[in-house]
Amino acid sequence: MSSEKLVYFFGDGSAEGKASMKALLGGKGANLADMSSLGLPVPPGFTITTEVCDLYYKLGRKYPESLAGQIDANLAKLEQATGKTFGRGPNPLLVSVRSGAAQSMPGMMDTVLNLGLNDETLAAVAKLTGNERFAWDAYRRFLQMFGDVVLGIEHHDFEHALQGVKDKCGVENDTELDVAGLKDVVAEYQKVYDRNGKPFPQDPRAQLDAAIDAVFGSWNNDRAIRYRQMNEIRGLLGTAVNVQTMVFGNMGNDSATGVAFTRDPSTGANAYFYGEYLINAQGEDVVAGIRTPQQITLAGSRAWATANNVGEANRAAKFPSLEEAMPEAFAVLDSIREKLEKHYRDMQDLEFTIEKGKLFMLQTRNGKRTAAAAVKIAVDLAAEGLISEQDAVCRVEPKQLDQLLHPTFDAAAEKAATVLAKGLPASPGAAKGQIVFSAETAEAWKAEGRDSILVRIETSPEDIGGMDAAQGILTARGGMTSHAAVVARGMGKCCVAGCGDARINYHAKTLTFGSTVLKEGDWISLNGSTGTVYQGAVKTVDPELSGPFGTIMELADKYRTLNVRTNADTPADTKVAVRFGAEGIGLCRTEHMFFEGTRIISMRKMILAKNLAEREQALSELLPMQRGDFEGIFRALAGRPATIRLLDPPLHEFLPHEHSGRHEVALQLGISAEEVAAKVNELHEFNPMLGFRGCRLAVIYPEILKMQVRAIIEAALTVQAEGVEVHPEIMIPLVGAVKELAFCNTFAKEAIQEVFAETGKTISYKLGTMIEVPRAAITADEVATEAEFFSFGTNDLTQMTCGFSRDDSGRFLKPYVEDEDKRFYEFDPFQVLDQDGVGKLVKMAAELGRKARPDIKLGICGEHGGDPRSVAFCHQVGLNYVSCSPYRVPIARLAAAQAAIKSK
Amino acid sequence: MSSEKLVYFFGDGSAEGKASMKALLGGKGANLADMSSLGLPVPPGFTITTEVCDLYYKLGRKYPESLAGQIDANLAKLEQATGKTFGRGPNPLLVSVRSGAAQSMPGMMDTVLNLGLNDETLAAVAKLTGNERFAWDAYRRFLQMFGDVVLGIEHHDFEHALQGVKDKCGVENDTELDVAGLKDVVAEYQKVYDRNGKPFPQDPRAQLDAAIDAVFGSWNNDRAIRYRQMNEIRGLLGTAVNVQTMVFGNMGNDSATGVAFTRDPSTGANAYFYGEYLINAQGEDVVAGIRTPQQITLAGSRAWATANNVGEANRAAKFPSLEEAMPEAFAVLDSIREKLEKHYRDMQDLEFTIEKGKLFMLQTRNGKRTAAAAVKIAVDLAAEGLISEQDAVCRVEPKQLDQLLHPTFDAAAEKAATVLAKGLPASPGAAKGQIVFSAETAEAWKAEGRDSILVRIETSPEDIGGMDAAQGILTARGGMTSHAAVVARGMGKCCVAGCGDARINYHAKTLTFGSTVLKEGDWISLNGSTGTVYQGAVKTVDPELSGPFGTIMELADKYRTLNVRTNADTPADTKVAVRFGAEGIGLCRTEHMFFEGTRIISMRKMILAKNLAEREQALSELLPMQRGDFEGIFRALAGRPATIRLLDPPLHEFLPHEHSGRHEVALQLGISAEEVAAKVNELHEFNPMLGFRGCRLAVIYPEILKMQVRAIIEAALTVQAEGVEVHPEIMIPLVGAVKELAFCNTFAKEAIQEVFAETGKTISYKLGTMIEVPRAAITADEVATEAEFFSFGTNDLTQMTCGFSRDDSGRFLKPYVEDEDKRFYEFDPFQVLDQDGVGKLVKMAAELGRKARPDIKLGICGEHGGDPRSVAFCHQVGLNYVSCSPYRVPIARLAAAQAAIKSK
Repeated sequence: MSSEKLVYFFGDGSAEGKASMKALLGGKGANLADMSSLGLPVPPGFTITTEVCDLYYKLGRKYPESLAGQIDANLAKLEQATGKTFGRGPNPLLVSVRSGAAQSMPGMMDTVLNLGLNDETLAAVAKLTGNERFAWDAYRRFLQMFGDVVLGIEHHDFEHALQGVKDKCGVENDTELDVAGLKDVVAEYQKVYDRNGKPFPQDPRAQLDAAIDAVFGSWNNDRAIRYRQMNEIRGLLGTAVNVQTMVFGNMGNDSATGVAFTRDPSTGANAYFYGEYLINAQGEDVVAGIRTPQQITLAGSRAWATANNVGEANRAAKFPSLEEAMPEAFAVLDSIREKLEKHYRDMQDLEFTIEKGKLFMLQTRNGKRTAAAAVKIAVDLAAEGLISEQDAVCRVEPKQLDQLLHPTFDAAAEKAATVLAKGLPASPGAAKGQIVFSAETAEAWKAEGRDSILVRIETSPEDIGGMDAAQGILTARGGMTSHAAVVARGMGKCCVAGCGDARINYHAKTLTFGSTVLKEGDWISLNGSTGTVYQGAVKTVDPELSGPFGTIMELADKYRTLNVRTNADTPADTKVAVRFGAEGIGLCRTEHMFFEGTRIISMRKMILAKNLAEREQALSELLPMQRGDFEGIFRALAGRPATIRLLDPPLHEFLPHEHSGRHEVALQLGISAEEVAAKVNELHEFNPMLGFRGCRLAVIYPEILKMQVRAIIEAALTVQAEGVEVHPEIMIPLVGAVKELAFCNTFAKEAIQEVFAETGKTISYKLGTMIEVPRAAITADEVATEAEFFSFGTNDLTQMTCGFSRDDSGRFLKPYVEDEDKRFYEFDPFQVLDQDGVGKLVKMAAELGRKARPDIKLGICGEHGGDPRSVAFCHQVGLNYVSCSPYRVPIARLAAAQAAIKSK
Repeated sequence: MSSEKLVYFFGDGSAEGKASMKALLGGKGANLADMSSLGLPVPPGFTITTEVCDLYYKLGRKYPESLAGQIDANLAKLEQATGKTFGRGPNPLLVSVRSGAAQSMPGMMDTVLNLGLNDETLAAVAKLTGNERFAWDAYRRFLQMFGDVVLGIEHHDFEHALQGVKDKCGVENDTELDVAGLKDVVAEYQKVYDRNGKPFPQDPRAQLDAAIDAVFGSWNNDRAIRYRQMNEIRGLLGTAVNVQTMVFGNMGNDSATGVAFTRDPSTGANAYFYGEYLINAQGEDVVAGIRTPQQITLAGSRAWATANNVGEANRAAKFPSLEEAMPEAFAVLDSIREKLEKHYRDMQDLEFTIEKGKLFMLQTRNGKRTAAAAVKIAVDLAAEGLISEQDAVCRVEPKQLDQLLHPTFDAAAEKAATVLAKGLPASPGAAKGQIVFSAETAEAWKAEGRDSILVRIETSPEDIGGMDAAQGILTARGGMTSHAAVVARGMGKCCVAGCGDARINYHAKTLTFGSTVLKEGDWISLNGSTGTVYQGAVKTVDPELSGPFGTIMELADKYRTLNVRTNADTPADTKVAVRFGAEGIGLCRTEHMFFEGTRIISMRKMILAKNLAEREQALSELLPMQRGDFEGIFRALAGRPATIRLLDPPLHEFLPHEHSGRHEVALQLGISAEEVAAKVNELHEFNPMLGFRGCRLAVIYPEILKMQVRAIIEAALTVQAEGVEVHPEIMIPLVGAVKELAFCNTFAKEAIQEVFAETGKTISYKLGTMIEVPRAAITADEVATEAEFFSFGTNDLTQMTCGFSRDDSGRFLKPYVEDEDKRFYEFDPFQVLDQDGVGKLVKMAAELGRKARPDIKLGICGEHGGDPRSVAFCHQVGLNYVSCSPYRVPIARLAAAQAAIKSK
C-alpha cells in the first residue's frame, strides 16, 4: 500500500519530485519540485505525499511509523539548505504548512504560516531582522492562525481580543499598532488559548505535527467534501502537505506579495501580464480582499485606473504597478512568466513573494479561467504554435461552454438602464435577480424558482451553496482574486466584486448606493464583464457565437465523428439548436404539443371518448394542429432529419387532478364531472412509469398512432412541395418486444400509404424505436428486424435498469452518489450515463442491433446526450449521433471531438 | 406454405396418414388413420389438414384452389370403399363432419352428423333400412344440427318448433314421436329455415362445403379462443376436418353408442373397463346427458347400481351392461381396448358405435383424467412394464398435482354433515361455497372473494368461465361424460353431476331437495369423489400424500437435479412445505412479520422516529419478536437452509392511508395526527416500485438491517443450542451495484460479530443478494464478489426488465398476451418466465456470477419458481434450486424431474 518514501524534498535548484507526480505530491508540491528543478527561486521545503493522507484515514487518523523519522530527516535537510535552525538559534527556520491535492481546491483546506515561532525564536527573529515590530506582528498572526486553524478556537475570539487592543490604543487598522500594541495582542491571544483550555505549544516540532494533522484533517471537512461533490472531483487519495521555508512579503516597503496570471483569466487576452500585488503584506492579505491590490504591469495599472476613475497622478502615487515600484523584481518575474508558460504550454497562475527585494516563487499551476478565456487561450496557443489543434480542442472543458451560450444584456436596454455603481468585472456574464443577503436565502429562493443576486460584503467558503444558487454575486470588498471572484469564475457565474460604493446592512437587509436604498427582494442586474450594477431587471439577448468560439467549434467539427442532434419540440427551439450547430432533431416529443391552448380540450375529448367514433372525432380535431407543428419544425430544420416520437406519457397526465379542474373539463366537454372523475380514477396507476404509456397506448388505440403518423407525413409532403428536403423518422416509444413494434409499424405503414394514395405523392421515411425498456436492449437483435433506427432513451433506460424512479430517488440517490462512505455510483446516473450498468446494455443493444441490421442508425436522446462523459461513451460504442437540448449542442460537439481525439 | 396434399384418406385397414401426423391431421384424424392401419373397424373417411385451416384464415376465409378437387377425389374413394353414393342412389352415403385439432378441445368446435340427407336420400335410407322412423329421425336431427351449427339459426327456434309438435302429439320425449310426428317436425324445421331467410341446401355437396366452412370457422369462435387461452394452447395451425362415413347407434335395440376409458379416468383404477353407452342412440345423446347412460362392464354396472341404490333386478332389467346386452360386440370392444392401450402405452378414451350388432370405432385418444388418475395410471403403467420410470414421471402434468394437494373433507365432519342428495362423482375433491345459479354470478362473486358452488340443470360451453370461478359444480342432469363432468375434470374442479334429486329453478333462484329449499347465497358442500351433496360448509382436512402420489414424487426426486425450496414466512407455512418435500426456504419475507398484532405499532414508531435514538428504541422492541419468528422457522426446517430477505417494501406500506387510521396511529404513539400525515406525505412516491425500498432502506438506516441480522443470528444460535442444525442465508434485496451490497454486508457482519462476541458462540452463515434489478443481473460478475448466493427475484426483475408495473399492467398486458392478433408475449410474463427477455438476463447473470465465484449458489424465488415451464428453464440454465409457495413444491419437484429427463 505505502511506498517507503513518504516525504519529497525540493530546493536549491533540484528536487526529489517532478511535475508528473501530481497524484502523489499534489499539484502544488509537484510544481514546486518542478520549478526548483528548473532553477527558479523557490524557497526550499518538502512535501508529505497524498498516500500519507490516505493512510492517515485508513489507519484511523494515525500515520505510518516511518513518517516521523522522514520528517525529521527532511527538517535537517531544510536546516542545511537554508542555514537556519528550526525552533532555536539565532537564525530560526520558520515554515508554512499548506495543503495541495492533485486537483486544485482553492480555499477549501487549511494553511498555517510562520510556523516555528515561539517566545524564544520570536526574540531571535526580532534581533536578526532588526525589526521588532515585524517579529511581533508575525507572532500574533501565527498565534491567531494556529489557534483558529489547528486548534479550532473560534476566529471570533481572536478578532474580539484584537479589537479590544485596537480600541485601547485608539487605532483603526492592524497596521497602525506599534510594538507595544502587538505585545498586548499577543498577551490577549495567550489568554484566548487559556480560556479555551488549549495551550499554545511552544515546541515547534509539536506545532508542525499539529499543523500537519490539521491539513490532513481538513481534507474531509464539510466544505472540502462539498467542493469535491460540486466539482465532481473523484478518485483522489487525499491532499499532500507542503512544508516550506517562509519568505516574507511584509518585511517593509522593499517586500511585497502577489498573484499573477500569464494571460487574462477573464477574457483570455494576452495583452499584458495580468495580476495583483500588495507591498508589505503577507499572501493572505491579497486573497482576503481587505486592501485594494495594485496591478503588476504599468499597462494593467493604467487600465485599472481608467476603469475605476482613478487619475494618473493619484494612481502613480498610491497604486503604482510592480513594474514601476520594483522594476528589478518585476523583470525577474516577467522572465519567469514566459519561461513557465512555455514550459507548461498553458496559461499559468503564479504566487510570488518579494522579501527585501528578492523574488521567490511560491506556486505555479494551470490558471483557472472563464469559458471565454479558455476558448481564446486554446485558440491563441494553437495559433502561436505552442499546442496542436487537437490539444486546443481538448483544452476547453465542454461543460464550460455553457457560460458562452447564455444571454448577455441587450445593448440598448443596458444603455438605457440605471447604473447604480461599478465594481470589478470579476466573472463575466449577465445576471438579473432579486436581492438576497445570505446564502441560505439564495438557496431557499432557488428552490422556489426565484432568481436572486447574492449581495455580500465579502464571501467566504461557507457561501458557496448560495453562490451556486444565485444568478449572480455582488461583493462590496475584494479584488479580482478574492474568494468571490475565484469561485464565481469557476462556477461560470456572473460576479461583480469589490464594489466599494455599495453599502450593505445585513441586519436591515438593505443595499445602499448613495441615496438609493434597495431592500431584499428588489431587482438588480449585474454585468460581470464590465463590473456594472444596474437597477431593475435588464433585458438580455442571445450570445455571440463567432470569434474564438466559432474557431474552437470549427476545430471540434473537424475532429469529431459523432453527429450531434437536438431535442426540440417547437420551431423556436429547433432554430436555436440549428444556430448552435445541431445536425437534426434526435427527439421531438409530440406530447408537449397537446398541452397548448385549446388543444388540451381536444386531447381530453379523445381520452374521455366512449368509443372509437368519438375518439376518431377528437383525433381529427388534433390532426391539423399537429400537422402545423411538424410543418414549422421541418421548415426550421431546412433539410436536416427529424426523429419524431409518438405519444408517450400516460393519458392521466392530460387530465386535471383537482376537483375544480375536473369541473371545468366537464363543462368544456359537456359531460358530467362524475364521468371525468371516473376516468381519472380509471387511469390512476400505482407506478405510472411502468404503466399504460408509450406504444402501449398505440397498441390499444391504434387510431392515435395513425393520426400522428398522418400528421407527420402530410406535413412532410407539404414542406417538401415548398422545395425543402424533409427526412421524417417516426419513432415508436417504450417497445419491449419485437412483435409490439411490428404491430405498431403495420398501422403506421397503413396511415402512410393512405396519405400517399390520397395525395399521389411520396416521401422517404424511416420507422424505428426508442430503446428504453431493458428488454428491448436485451432483445435488440430481434427488435432491429423491425427498426430502421434505435434511439437510446437513456432516461427511462436508467430508471428501469437501476430501478430508480427519477421522481422518488431523492431520498437515497444523493447519498448513494455523494456520501464518501458510499459512492455506489461514481456520478448521478441521471446526469452521467452509468457506463458499467446502463452503458453495458447500450453497448449490447448497439452490437445486437448492428448484427441484425448492419446499416441501422444508432443515437441517444436521453439527457445524457449533452453530458461530455456520456458523449465520450457514445463515441466509444460507435453510435451515429447524440441528441441533447439546444443549449447543450456545442458542448456535445466539443465533447465528441475530444472523445475522437482521445480515442486515437 | 401449403403442401400439395390437403386431404388424407383412411379406411379398410389402411390409411394415408399415421399417428405421428397429429400436427397436420389433428389428434382425431391421426388416430383414425392409425386405427385403420391397425385393422380396427373404423368407418372410412378422410381428413382435411390443419394447414388448410391456417390457409383459410390467411386467405381471408378462402381455400387453396386445389382443395375442391381433392375433396371430390376423396368422396369418390369413399363411395368406392363403402359401396354407397353421396347424395343419391339406393344406398346413400351419409357422413359426419367433425373438428379435430392437434390438442383436444372437447366441445369447443362444431360437429355435423348425418350430412348427405335430403328429401331424396331420406327416402332411400328409409327404404334401405326398412325403418322409416329412423330415417325421419335422422333427417330432423340433421336439419336441426345443420341449421344451428352451420347456418347459425338460433337453437331455440328449433327447440320451440319441436316442443310445438310434441305438445300437439301429446308426448313428452322425442323418442315417443312417431313417423307422422317426425314428419311434422321436419316440416316445422323447414319453416324455421324459411323464417330465418336461410334455405336448407338440398345439394349434399353444398351441405358438405358449408359444414367444412363451419368447422374451420369454429376454430376462432369465442369459446374456442377462450378455451385455448385458459388452457394455454398455443402454436397450433388450426383444426383439421374429419369427414367420416356415418354409422348409426340408433337403428334399433341391436344398435348402441358409447364412450369408454380403458382405465378409470377419475381414480386411475384398472379394475374394469370404465365407460358408458346407450342403446338405440346417437353419440350426442350420451354426451348431452339427457338419458342416464349404462355401464360397459357387468362389474361396472353393479358398482354403479350400488352407488345409486338401484336393486340388481332393476339394474339387470333397465340398465344392463354392454357385456350383458351385447356380449359379442363387447368382446370385440374389450379386445380392442387391450390392443389400443398397449399400442399407445397410455389410458385411452374411446368412442364407438354399434350398428345392428357390428362395432365401429369412431375415436381413440389419450384420455383426459384427474390428477389422481394421472398419477396412478403413470405409476401402474410403469409397474406393468408398459412404460419406463422416466416415462411415468413425464406422464403427469405438473400443474395437475395441485388438485391432489388441496384439502378433502374432514371424515368426522363429513359424517356429521346433513346429506342433501347424491349425484355422480364426476370430478373428485371437496368444495364448499355459496350457491349461485349462473356463470356470471360465479365470476362476479369470485371477483368479490366469495366462494361459490355453481348449480346448473346442465352446463354448456358458455358456462366455462363460471365453472372456473366457482369452487365446485353441481348439475341435475348429465352423466360422467357430460359436459360438466369432462370440463370439471380438466379443470381439476370438484363436480357432482346428474344429481336427479335436485330441482333447480333459475327464475326463483332456488335449489330444492325434497322439502329443503335453498336459495342463492346459501352454503352447500360437494364431495366430488363420492357424489354427495351436503348442506352448509363442511370442514376440510389436508390431503394424503402417500400411495401413487408418494411413488411419483419418489421417482421425481430420483431423476431431478434441481433442488426445490419454498417461499414461507411462518413456521406453519414452513411445516406444510416440508411435508410437501421442500428442501429449505428460498424466500422468507420478513416484512409480513411486522404487520401482526402489536408489532405494527413498534414498526410505525420506528418509521415515525425523529432521530436515531428513537429509531433504535423502536427497533429494540421489534428485535425479540423477529427473533421468535426465526426460531420457529428454524425449528420447523429441522436442519434445512433458510434464505431470509431483509426488509423490502417501501415504509409507507406500514402506515395507514385513511384519515381515521392516522388518528389511531397518532393516539397509539402519542404524537399529533399532523405528524403522521406529514410522514405519510413525505413517504409518498410516484413510482414506489422504483423508490425507497429494499436495501436502500438498509443503506439509509443501517440500524434496521442490524436489528434484523441480529434477530436471525440470535435465533440461529438458540436453535442450534437445541441440537438442530441451522443454515441461515441472509439476503439483501434490491441491490443494483456491488458497492451497495458491500456497504450492507459491512453492517451485517458487524451485527453478526457483535452477537458472536456477546454469546461466545458462532454459526456459519451466508450473505447474498436477490437479483431483481436489471443492473444487478448485468453486473452480476461484480455483485458476485460480495454475494455467496444469488436468488433471482423474477417478479420484480420482470417488472423492471419489461417495464410492466404488475399493479397497472391489466389495461394492456391481457391483450398483449391473449389477443390472437397480438401475442407479443407467448404467456403472461408474470406467470411464465419470459425466457427470451427476462430469461436472457437470468442466464447472463448466472454465467457472470459463476465466472466470478464458481461455488456461488443460484436460485429463483419469484412466483415463476412454481411454474413448470419456468422450472424447466431454471434447470436448463443450471440454477441450484427453485423456490415456490408450499402448495407448489410437489409441482416444482415433478417439473424439475421432467426437465432433467427431457434434457438428456
